[in-house]
Amino acid sequence: MYFYSPTLKQEKVFRDPIHDHIHIQHQLILDIINCREFQRLRRIKQTGTSLYTFHGAEHSRFGHCVGVYEIARRICDHFKRNYPSQKEGDGLWDDRNRILVLCAALLHDLGHGPFSHAFEKIFQTNHEDITVALILSEETEVHQVLARVHPDFPKAVASIIQKTHPNKQLVQLISSQIDADRMDYLLRDAYYTGVNYGRFDLSRILRVMLPKKNGIAFHLSGMHAVEDYVLSRYQMYMQVYFHPVSRGVEVLLNHLLKRAKYDYGHPSHPLHHSASLLAPFFTGDWSLEDYLKLDDGVLSTYFTHWLEEEDPILSDLAGRFLSRKPFKSVAFDQEKDQDKIDRLTQIIKELGYDTNYYTALNSSYDLPYDFYRPGQKKNRTEIELLRSDGQFIELSLVSEVVHAITGKARGDNRFYFPREILYPETNSVSLFNDLIAEFQQLIQQLSH
Amino acid sequence: MYFYSPTLKQEKVFRDPIHDHIHIQHQLILDIINCREFQRLRRIKQTGTSLYTFHGAEHSRFGHCVGVYEIARRICDHFKRNYPSQKEGDGLWDDRNRILVLCAALLHDLGHGPFSHAFEKIFQTNHEDITVALILSEETEVHQVLARVHPDFPKAVASIIQKTHPNKQLVQLISSQIDADRMDYLLRDAYYTGVNYGRFDLSRILRVMLPKKNGIAFHLSGMHAVEDYVLSRYQMYMQVYFHPVSRGVEVLLNHLLKRAKYDYGHPSHPLHHSASLLAPFFTGDWSLEDYLKLDDGVLSTYFTHWLEEEDPILSDLAGRFLSRKPFKSVAFDQEKDQDKIDRLTQIIKELGYDTNYYTALNSSYDLPYDFYRPGQKKNRTEIELLRSDGQFIELSLVSEVVHAITGKARGDNRFYFPREILYPETNSVSLFNDLIAEFQQLIQQLSH
Amino acid sequence: MYFYSPTLKQEKVFRDPIHDHIHIQHQLILDIINCREFQRLRRIKQTGTSLYTFHGAEHSRFGHCVGVYEIARRICDHFKRNYPSQKEGDGLWDDRNRILVLCAALLHDLGHGPFSHAFEKIFQTNHEDITVALILSEETEVHQVLARVHPDFPKAVASIIQKTHPNKQLVQLISSQIDADRMDYLLRDAYYTGVNYGRFDLSRILRVMLPKKNGIAFHLSGMHAVEDYVLSRYQMYMQVYFHPVSRGVEVLLNHLLKRAKYDYGHPSHPLHHSASLLAPFFTGDWSLEDYLKLDDGVLSTYFTHWLEEEDPILSDLAGRFLSRKPFKSVAFDQEKDQDKIDRLTQIIKELGYDTNYYTALNSSYDLPYDFYRPGQKKNRTEIELLRSDGQFIELSLVSEVVHAITGKARGDNRFYFPREILYPETNSVSLFNDLIAEFQQLIQQLSH
Amino acid sequence: MYFYSPTLKQEKVFRDPIHDHIHIQHQLILDIINCREFQRLRRIKQTGTSLYTFHGAEHSRFGHCVGVYEIARRICDHFKRNYPSQKEGDGLWDDRNRILVLCAALLHDLGHGPFSHAFEKIFQTNHEDITVALILSEETEVHQVLARVHPDFPKAVASIIQKTHPNKQLVQLISSQIDADRMDYLLRDAYYTGVNYGRFDLSRILRVMLPKKNGIAFHLSGMHAVEDYVLSRYQMYMQVYFHPVSRGVEVLLNHLLKRAKYDYGHPSHPLHHSASLLAPFFTGDWSLEDYLKLDDGVLSTYFTHWLEEEDPILSDLAGRFLSRKPFKSVAFDQEKDQDKIDRLTQIIKELGYDTNYYTALNSSYDLPYDFYRPGQKKNRTEIELLRSDGQFIELSLVSEVVHAITGKARGDNRFYFPREILYPETNSVSLFNDLIAEFQQLIQQLSH
Repeated sequence: MYFYSPTLKQEKVFRDPIHDHIHIQHQLILDIINCREFQRLRRIKQTGTSLYTFHGAEHSRFGHCVGVYEIARRICDHFKRNYPSQKEGDGLWDDRNRILVLCAALLHDLGHGPFSHAFEKIFQTNHEDITVALILSEETEVHQVLARVHPDFPKAVASIIQKTHPNKQLVQLISSQIDADRMDYLLRDAYYTGVNYGRFDLSRILRVMLPKKNGIAFHLSGMHAVEDYVLSRYQMYMQVYFHPVSRGVEVLLNHLLKRAKYDYGHPSHPLHHSASLLAPFFTGDWSLEDYLKLDDGVLSTYFTHWLEEEDPILSDLAGRFLSRKPFKSVAFDQEKDQDKIDRLTQIIKELGYDTNYYTALNSSYDLPYDFYRPGQKKNRTEIELLRSDGQFIELSLVSEVVHAITGKARGDNRFYFPREILYPETNSVSLFNDLIAEFQQLIQQLSH
Repeated sequence: MYFYSPTLKQEKVFRDPIHDHIHIQHQLILDIINCREFQRLRRIKQTGTSLYTFHGAEHSRFGHCVGVYEIARRICDHFKRNYPSQKEGDGLWDDRNRILVLCAALLHDLGHGPFSHAFEKIFQTNHEDITVALILSEETEVHQVLARVHPDFPKAVASIIQKTHPNKQLVQLISSQIDADRMDYLLRDAYYTGVNYGRFDLSRILRVMLPKKNGIAFHLSGMHAVEDYVLSRYQMYMQVYFHPVSRGVEVLLNHLLKRAKYDYGHPSHPLHHSASLLAPFFTGDWSLEDYLKLDDGVLSTYFTHWLEEEDPILSDLAGRFLSRKPFKSVAFDQEKDQDKIDRLTQIIKELGYDTNYYTALNSSYDLPYDFYRPGQKKNRTEIELLRSDGQFIELSLVSEVVHAITGKARGDNRFYFPREILYPETNSVSLFNDLIAEFQQLIQQLSH
Repeated sequence: MYFYSPTLKQEKVFRDPIHDHIHIQHQLILDIINCREFQRLRRIKQTGTSLYTFHGAEHSRFGHCVGVYEIARRICDHFKRNYPSQKEGDGLWDDRNRILVLCAALLHDLGHGPFSHAFEKIFQTNHEDITVALILSEETEVHQVLARVHPDFPKAVASIIQKTHPNKQLVQLISSQIDADRMDYLLRDAYYTGVNYGRFDLSRILRVMLPKKNGIAFHLSGMHAVEDYVLSRYQMYMQVYFHPVSRGVEVLLNHLLKRAKYDYGHPSHPLHHSASLLAPFFTGDWSLEDYLKLDDGVLSTYFTHWLEEEDPILSDLAGRFLSRKPFKSVAFDQEKDQDKIDRLTQIIKELGYDTNYYTALNSSYDLPYDFYRPGQKKNRTEIELLRSDGQFIELSLVSEVVHAITGKARGDNRFYFPREILYPETNSVSLFNDLIAEFQQLIQQLSH
Repeated sequence: MYFYSPTLKQEKVFRDPIHDHIHIQHQLILDIINCREFQRLRRIKQTGTSLYTFHGAEHSRFGHCVGVYEIARRICDHFKRNYPSQKEGDGLWDDRNRILVLCAALLHDLGHGPFSHAFEKIFQTNHEDITVALILSEETEVHQVLARVHPDFPKAVASIIQKTHPNKQLVQLISSQIDADRMDYLLRDAYYTGVNYGRFDLSRILRVMLPKKNGIAFHLSGMHAVEDYVLSRYQMYMQVYFHPVSRGVEVLLNHLLKRAKYDYGHPSHPLHHSASLLAPFFTGDWSLEDYLKLDDGVLSTYFTHWLEEEDPILSDLAGRFLSRKPFKSVAFDQEKDQDKIDRLTQIIKELGYDTNYYTALNSSYDLPYDFYRPGQKKNRTEIELLRSDGQFIELSLVSEVVHAITGKARGDNRFYFPREILYPETNSVSLFNDLIAEFQQLIQQLSH
């Protein structure tokens, strides 16, 4: 089924630092962007706590979403110019799918909440499910705008995002190991952090991309550009997304929300200060409307309120977050170092900390790339390259550097603890000097 | 008087998208950045409502402040390398002033509040006074860190920011028509918005800058680079800072805060939903501690709370702000068009709007550059160029393009009104069709 | 008359550092680029002697020509998308003119010779006439490729370049005060030199550009972007193209060629070493085929040959050029300083130099922008802005900064002389010490 | 032994597109740059024939050489600031070595000739030996300038370039697997070609670099930045330096020079047209002075002369080179495809071509990285990383992606042949149709 939406007589543009201009060619796209659910994305940061390491990375999910739209639009233009379908089912590009894929690109992250990971973990929300719910719910402005195209249009858009749409070409443009989503966020996050690692060659990749039956692929001649993209992604994970300091802020945030939730229901130390918009999440009984009211600023506002709470743990953690005092960490080996971690935890307890809120184990792992492994659940769509004889070949078979990181999760395990134990105030005299010395020695052993 | 602060054995760096790296060479600088008052700047956006026109401009004052520090540091290095003072009073650079000027650069914007202009206007605060108060107050972490250098150090830093310090070289590095502050924000705002206008040649300007008795100056050979900076600044004001759409959001914000303040004290429609951190400002009785708790997120959180308020004007304005529905505007001539503006206002009233909250006159004017005009209050420090015969000459005397914009304020006056009057819902049948037609006609006349 | 040329099934691209990719969509364009006359442009530097000041500027006219093509192509796409002609003569864009304007863009600089200005001056050639001759001559590959489209096609392409084509839209895209040619060279020369001055906002300008009857214009809303372009151009002239050092190399080159020409015909000191490809130019009897054999490398090869010539002036000047020893210069005022220049020249003569070859007056002036002045010969096509009431207004009427530089030629007059007179070897004892002291004093007086 | 050279009172700068500014802080450095041997580098292209694929890459070795100097200078500054030697032999940085290492950096490529590889192969020259000879020969300006510092200074500079200097720190700054030379050319070639692959994070690498006893190393914390550099280098080789089209021009050049050399000595078809500067190389009896007269322009000038030669092979190859008609190629497997290559060669012979000049086998292989392998000749200096326990670890032991490309040469073997055999003129009727069809079929088989 094909959907139709009229084009603007003259296109409109938004200035964008990554793509120079975002080109808007349909009134529908403008209308979606103007919905309150979409505007809310301006109040949700794109990279969570990364800005506490890379101070430039203060950008929101709004820019990313219009960026994914723009990349999808450029792919459509390229496919239409160079691979136009001649007849149904020839595996080439049918441009009547354009408006569908553009809407899916624009809306794929609509359901993100504040500080995604920590929030989702503590309150058991799921941004992908919420994205779909927002598109399908008749209450939302986004749904109403989409439904004006056709009553079945919202469902079609959602099915692309859910990867259930029968046309895998459309699905893979938005979700695969090399899709419009990933390409935008790598470039965007690299730009805002100021690092170079994410700067692969977008225009070359778009040029060698081609539609195929049931998916997308790349010309073999562009293999090194694709390889470079995979490596850029790998580098961004290693150097930016998994940075130990950002994770130290993430841990703090996690413990702070966990403590607030604990306090909320607790008769002996109730929350005195308002956190009204969070209340439905403390009780677990929340609606889409409740969810839409949350954003990064709401959470940090309540943290400011909580500075005055009686519960010393809550107000201390809130203060640490607001003043950016991340937990410090050390990497460890899960097999060899368990004893040392146990002892470190024990010392922290003896020093008077509640280890539920003042220590954490944090593992960050990513699978930079994988090929299709039959029989496995949660399989990846592998990256395929078109040879000049018309056959497709999987990327890791031709790229040794990609092969080297294929199928292996990368990352580390870290133990988090309060910074002041490692670096106590210079003049502080302490009854705990021996404990602290032992602590410091253990950390030093782990660091080597 | 010279102050001393030890340097780090190995410098530390922050990655910055504008300056690549911010180089930290003193523990003192690190300690200031780690203060809670300084970390709070991460929650205050640098360009207020500009992000509603240029979606990339979501950066905070934190990055700007460390950027100004970095430019000041580079100037010190340049002066120390090329213009070292040989004896007191020779007008060259005495590097013993370095730590003082670096701290002033870093702290010059410390007192900024949320959405600066609208907030300051409604609640009569002043960020410059607050900056100084935060530096001088013994309660703040920043003061305590500074005072560790020397009891008089906070006062010295404040005097640079207040422009009362006797050494005008130091003052002009931070505050003049071409200072570290302006150079950073032009480059930074250009980078984040994605426009090119602000991208003057920083490294060339830093190279031609030189210290002189009672100030700074530039080699005449660098005149065109300085000229280019002045024009960049002019372009950024014209094209970014004064953008009518951003001002339409600013107007909205202003009216929203005004209404909330009005409601707060009002017996008949009190605020039901919490805005506890704003309360001291509604009553006008606030402390520095109260001020430090405010940030952009706190305000927008209360706007979300206010969506539920009974007062329809308050909840409507809050909704418009959160969904980015700025007032629409038309430029007008204060002398010729007053009748038309009066009539437009009258129509809006007749359509049922409270014109106190649904219309506004907004003037944005900037004086791009001026020379020194004896006898005038609030004089500018003019930009001086050093000729090869040792004489200084004022910029506009040698640059005709600068001369063309010297001493003339640039900008416009705009009349703001609800967008829906100009573009009513297509199918809406209205009793007011005639009024709306007249309104549209008047707007069209003003647009030409 | 409209010409037709088939499009490629899949477009080809060249990687370009300015435009990222040059998109080739017609076999014809590829065929032109592959002609030997076009490939020859790789051996002619774009900015003549600028590379002796800005060492990065070593790019050839080849890249510029494909860049002008690419900008013209983007303008066609923009016009086709947003301003398609509905019926003949409506002043909108008729895309059947595309191939014509693309060829003219690509070929507009085909006739450039080595080190343009100096060569043209000494040998009285004219690159514009030669461009047209190369397109029209049946001997050239370029002509043959063009003529395959239609026998009248070469003439049509030439008429665009000569500005005689009846459709002024097409002419102005290639030649006006804001055309594809100028936009490319400003961006390209800025990129290769590494300065920022030429970096105006190309994509914004292309967006606000529109076709009109008999020309092109810009939306008034884009006035500041156009203003910024005019200023960028002005800055590039002041800071790069008119740089005194580059002109000092230009003067050297001019004198060297002048001397070689003098020697060639001269019985008493003939050229002993080969300069066979230059011979037709020494005698003034040259063909297009002779011209096509010249390039920058040919000239510098002969300069190397001439190092061995008996004529001491010729070999000395050749050595100075090859080792980059430009003449030194001082700016002077034509009205006030004539006496001093005369005396300087006299001293140089007394020091034993032939002032025909060791001094020069060099004036570099540019008219950054002008409006149409009826009655003047060589009038400029003024830049027009479209107001919202449909009327056009000339740029300098709305931009005060442009107004400030309108109609006024900018530049300076400089007197060139051998560097060693100003900075003699430190230990050289000289009979001429008094003359040299007087010389230095005069230079110092002129510098102030 | 330490050498001393005075610093300039005020530093001078050159504008550079890669490093923004090249900072000159010693008169000596200026004097070297002004030598005629150094200025000659402006006439030798940095990347040989790459510009025939990436038209932007027209930069010369001059810019690269000052760029290597600038990187070396920044490393010295970093080492001096952060790792100053306290006492002889502590493995830290002794800044008295600065001037030595700066001169070596600046001069390391002084001996390059025109179109390096082809020229060196045909005429058996070696640019490294010539670099050293130019520094040591008392005839050169460079030698004379260096010797003014101290009679032993030229030898010391040469020994760094020859890697025989006892201080391996200095040697490795200029020549190792991650040195100032490679870092500059990767960035510079990426900039001029317009590709992104070479853009690693220079400033981060410079920050994590540290001096050690007998060499340089990197902090383990910077491992990913170093890894990224190695991958950038690998990508530049795969995508730029080994591009089949550039190699097709290289093959052409090689055959052209080979034929000219053959003709020169040959009584039956002597060279009629001048190539006087090449004569000493044809006979094999050349001096440094002869070598210094050669550059890219000299060669291409003689190619233009040779267009008129009687020898049809020579004039045809010269024409192909000047009009950029590279040989076409196909990759092949040395073990499996020898039969096919033999048959292709045979066909070309039967078609009437002299296969000595119209076919070629070309292998381009690079070893992207290797660790130290005891017992092997021509060993690499491995990249070492400093762990926090003070031990060093070799890069490929901690980076799996580097490990994947360690010790394995990358590249391919290609067979080159005249393009017109694969793509004959469309309308050409030929007696050789069967041969051509067989040829095309074989090529197709090899392509898969």
